[in-house]
Amino acid sequence: MSSKLSERLRRGDVFEPDCPSRTILRNVTSRWGVLVLVALRTQTHRFSELRRKIAGVSEKMLAQTLQALEADGFVRREALPVIPPHVEYSLTPAGHEVSRRVEELADWIEQSLPSILQARKAVRS
Amino acid sequence: MSSKLSERLRRGDVFEPDCPSRTILRNVTSRWGVLVLVALRTQTHRFSELRRKIAGVSEKMLAQTLQALEADGFVRREALPVIPPHVEYSLTPAGHEVSRRVEELADWIEQSLPSILQARKAVRS
Repeated sequence: MSSKLSERLRRGDVFEPDCPSRTILRNVTSRWGVLVLVALRTQTHRFSELRRKIAGVSEKMLAQTLQALEADGFVRREALPVIPPHVEYSLTPAGHEVSRRVEELADWIEQSLPSILQARKAVRS
Repeated sequence: MSSKLSERLRRGDVFEPDCPSRTILRNVTSRWGVLVLVALRTQTHRFSELRRKIAGVSEKMLAQTLQALEADGFVRREALPVIPPHVEYSLTPAGHEVSRRVEELADWIEQSLPSILQARKAVRS
């Protein structure tokens, strides 16, 4: 019993509705959060570059996604003192850690796409 | 150029808005999809068991989530010929593969929760 309690204090539990780990997981796996984290793995990006790379995202949703990831300590926002204003986004060390896992998931899906689609077709026919 | 084309035909690209890999990634990383995939890793579950384990999910959302994961070939739904009716959900081989990646991500967040929260506090103060 006591070991369970200390376990719960030591780490989060995504199955607990009130555990902050659940919100963090949601931010990281949000529709655009996943793509932002993967896009920033290779390099720092300006807002407009991110928007172009992540085709389909609106300005508002990209801003919200970046804010949530910044609040959780995964993304660093840097406003460079130049004219015109120039803001760059990059991953923090924790951001690199979490995005590695996200990329592994996205990579697996990309690689497995042909077999997933084939299985899908088999189920439907 | 031709190698790029064959590369695109061979695997998905989550940065392409029309690539089916993007929808699959969304289903797998949906709010409840993540938790369903992790919950089913250890064992087969009945609908009511899943609902209890994934505290906070509504009946409707859980049903939709399971349907999407079933359509993508990650979850198997088995209706046992007993009275009263009894439906069991389990992971397919592809579901095991994908849920391993999802669990690694969730695990990392659970384990890193203390340091993530500390970083969050530091940013806000």
